[in-house]
Formats: sequence, C-alpha cells, structure tokens
Amino acid sequence: MSASAGRSRGCATGRGRAILIGAGPGDPELLTLRAARALGEADLILYDALVDARVLGLAPRAQRFYVGKRAGRPAISQSTIHALMIRAAGRGRVVVRLKSGDPFVLGRGGEEALACEAAGVPVEVVPGISSAIAGPGAAGIPVTHRGVSAGFLVLSAVPAVHYERVLASLPPGAVTVVLLMALGARGAIAAFLRGAGWPEDLPAAIVLGACTPRAWSWTGTLGEIDRVEIPVDRGDLPGLLVLGHVVSLADTVSRAMRREDDAEQKEEAPWLRIQAP
Amino acid sequence: MSASAGRSRGCATGRGRAILIGAGPGDPELLTLRAARALGEADLILYDALVDARVLGLAPRAQRFYVGKRAGRPAISQSTIHALMIRAAGRGRVVVRLKSGDPFVLGRGGEEALACEAAGVPVEVVPGISSAIAGPGAAGIPVTHRGVSAGFLVLSAVPAVHYERVLASLPPGAVTVVLLMALGARGAIAAFLRGAGWPEDLPAAIVLGACTPRAWSWTGTLGEIDRVEIPVDRGDLPGLLVLGHVVSLADTVSRAMRREDDAEQKEEAPWLRIQAP
Repeated sequence: MSASAGRSRGCATGRGRAILIGAGPGDPELLTLRAARALGEADLILYDALVDARVLGLAPRAQRFYVGKRAGRPAISQSTIHALMIRAAGRGRVVVRLKSGDPFVLGRGGEEALACEAAGVPVEVVPGISSAIAGPGAAGIPVTHRGVSAGFLVLSAVPAVHYERVLASLPPGAVTVVLLMALGARGAIAAFLRGAGWPEDLPAAIVLGACTPRAWSWTGTLGEIDRVEIPVDRGDLPGLLVLGHVVSLADTVSRAMRREDDAEQKEEAPWLRIQAP
Repeated sequence: MSASAGRSRGCATGRGRAILIGAGPGDPELLTLRAARALGEADLILYDALVDARVLGLAPRAQRFYVGKRAGRPAISQSTIHALMIRAAGRGRVVVRLKSGDPFVLGRGGEEALACEAAGVPVEVVPGISSAIAGPGAAGIPVTHRGVSAGFLVLSAVPAVHYERVLASLPPGAVTVVLLMALGARGAIAAFLRGAGWPEDLPAAIVLGACTPRAWSWTGTLGEIDRVEIPVDRGDLPGLLVLGHVVSLADTVSRAMRREDDAEQKEEAPWLRIQAP
C-alpha cells in the first residue's frame, strides 16, 4: 500500500511536457479555466473530433494536428499519437492532447499517461466535464435524484461484451445506466435487456450531441428505443442512452430550463475577454 | 415519448432566475468558463461547504449566504434553500446555487430545479467536474482504461441501502466502483463486500479532498481499507473509495504526474486576469 499527499498547480516553463486536457461535452464555455490557460501555453495540440473551433482558438501560437477519426479514412493509431507526444515533449515543447469529455472516461488518457511515463515525459491531466453526466443533464435528466437514484453506471456500448456482463447482473432500475457510443448499438442493447428481463416500460432517453448547439434528445421507454426515428441531420452526432427512473424528471426539469432560454438574450459569450496568461 | 432540440447559452438580463452551478472538485481552476461568467452576473449566491474562497471572489457584487452544514449546528433545510431561491428570483434577482462537484451528482440539483419549475422560476444548470471522476484521476487512477475497465459505477456510501443491493449483484471487479461520502462508511463497506464474496486482494484506493490542496490518497487492497490510518489533519476532508483493477495503474500514472510537478514553477494561477463580463 502507498499514500501520497496533495499537489498544487502552476505554470511550467523551459521543459517539454504533455498536458492531457478534457474539452468537455461540446459547449466551449464548459471548458475549465485551467484548460483555457493551458491551451495558451501549448506549442503543439493533438486534437480529436468534437472539439469546438473556438476552443482551438484559445491556442493561437500552437501547431495543431487533427488525430481523430475521419469518415472513410483510418484514424491515426494510438501508438503514433504516443510517438508524436513523446517526440515533441523531448524537444522541449508543451504538447496538449485535447479530447472531448474527460481524458479518463473512455478517452485513452490512461494509455497516454503510461506511454509518457515510460518515456520520462512529465504529464499533467486536466479533467473535463464528461458527456456521461452533462449530456443527460442538458436534456433535463439528473443522473442522481433523492428517492429515485443514488448512483449511476457509465458503460461503453461497444463492443457488447462491455455492457452485457454488468447489465445482466444489475437489478433493472436500481441505478441510472448511461451507455456511451450507443446510438448504433441501441437495437442490440434493447434486445439484450429484453432477454435479461428488463421491463419494457423502464424510462429511457436518447441524447445526441450532449451540450453542442445541435444537441437533440428523446425520452420514452426501454421498449421504444430501437424504434425511435433519429432526424437525418443528427445521425452523425455521438449518442448516449439513459436507462432509469430519473428520465421521468426530464419533462419538468427541461421545462424550467426552457423558461431560462426564453428569459435570456441570445448574446454570444464574451470569449475574447477571457485572457490566456 | 417526446423529443427536443439543442439550445444555446447567453447572458440574461432584467428577469429573476436561478443558476445551479457545479464548482467542481476543489481546485478553483477547474471551474468552467461559464460558471466564472455566471458568478459575475450573480446578485445572490447560496453556497455549500468545500467551495474555494477564490471562486466566491469571482462574484464581487453578490450577496453571499452559506447554506452548507456546520459542525454542531443543523444545516439549513433543503426547503428553506428552495424558498430563498424562489423569493430572490421573484424579486428579479439572479440567484446562483453554488455546489461542489456537479449539481446532478448527489447534489440535489434536480430537487432545486423542480422547486423552481413549480414556482415558475427559470433555471440554468451549469455542470461541474465531478469529484467521482476527477478525485480518482488526481490520484493517478483513470476510472476507465482499455483492457482493464470499460465503465464505472458511482454510488453514495450512505445510507448502506444505496450500495448494498447494487454491489451484491455486481460481479466483483467488472467495472470500477466509486463510493462517495465513504470515509466513515469504509468499515461497513468492507464487511459487506467480504460477505458478498468480493476478493480481499481487489485493488482499492481511498481519496480524500479530491483536487483540493490538502488532497491525500492511499492505494492498497479491499482487504486493507478498514485498517488504513487516516492522517489526523485530513479526517475532515470528504472521502471516496475506488474499487477495481484500474487502481493498479495509480503508481505509474501518478509518477508521471509527479514529474510534471517537478517541472513546473510554483506560480499562482493568474486569477484576476480572467475577467467577468
């Protein structure tokens, strides 16, 4: 066993290093202050799909490489990403690895930290807001709610082995279940849960695009999720499924949130007034 | 069933409303840009324990009320908090409800949103980084890691009924388990899991203080968690337990993060340069 005490953050200078940054669930205003500041320090940014252009704009002096997946073309391999990070840091550069969501929630942040450690490259991890929590939230679904659910389970929906063993044993509705990368897999998920005896009328939601301007959501029941018609112009968005009684709160909570939309002026956030150091 | 499309954010003027803000896991730099901006708009802030004074400093013109628990004194009731929010918003004020972590992760954000909805008060929810993910992360523990865990389960550790039914059915080690508010409950949790047949050698961690300067963590095994000696000067910090094979990565990942600490200059973040609108 081992114990360790807390550390403080600060500005680094003069030595190559890697910063793994979570860019959050799509709305650039949901970036953290630390992430915004670190982008200003970056010499090189390796970024994924789903990162807003305004976020990249916070790193005016950095070289930028897109390392995410492209339709019809193979993604840059994880080992190539590691090699790029280690090489640049070895040359004394500050390398930012910019991901949507949080680096440690199905984001391969752990693999990149291990690769950097093996190469002697210092690593900072800047957490980001996970779509697993904020995606449902933006649709009016609190992942926990007193008297309804005191916990939540986040699982990758692909491959199926990642959810089957766990959901087969879980009492249906005992906690909120959030399945990520689930849009294409929802038919298989519905069939599996039916087979496992989950009730057709368990409240369920589909959330596409989390906190991006094109976000879209649907609420209904588990029995309906494989028959939901997804608008053609949203089929490209990353999708998650929410299963559990908290989904029943969505109508009321999102009504309060729509009131807020009515009350607000549609003014752009003052991006340029948030200064990098 | 019902569907709804995305919304954009902006500045509100002239009408009372409530903003539920997640202040994140303790490091004030892990506040979001939106939260920082909303604090600048606030007329009244109702804040909990664990919120850093520098975060409150972003709301220079707001009245501030502490509504968290105090040692030896009863906390202000949830219904009183609702009444304060609704009354102030009804008088045309912007009320910020500032919580540590995320408003929807055991934060009663859903209850407050419902109360506001019933009173006709518009609500904005600004998600925050949850300690459930960032707390383990700061200790070098990625809640997911390819080949180790493709998911994680977050549960309240009090009362025991909140975790017993779920953990009794979960295959041990199948996903990372994060138990919140778990420091005092760790003996009961260990005894329960032993009774449920969980292996004594399952990797386990205790994380206190998440991303605050006084953070402290310990890694070992499930069989040891009820015998860990907590430093006397840390016993007041909120604590979480992590159970699962990802804990084995902590030594290596935190070694890379300590290199980063060695590389950085201990310079204070440029707080005052982040301007409210």
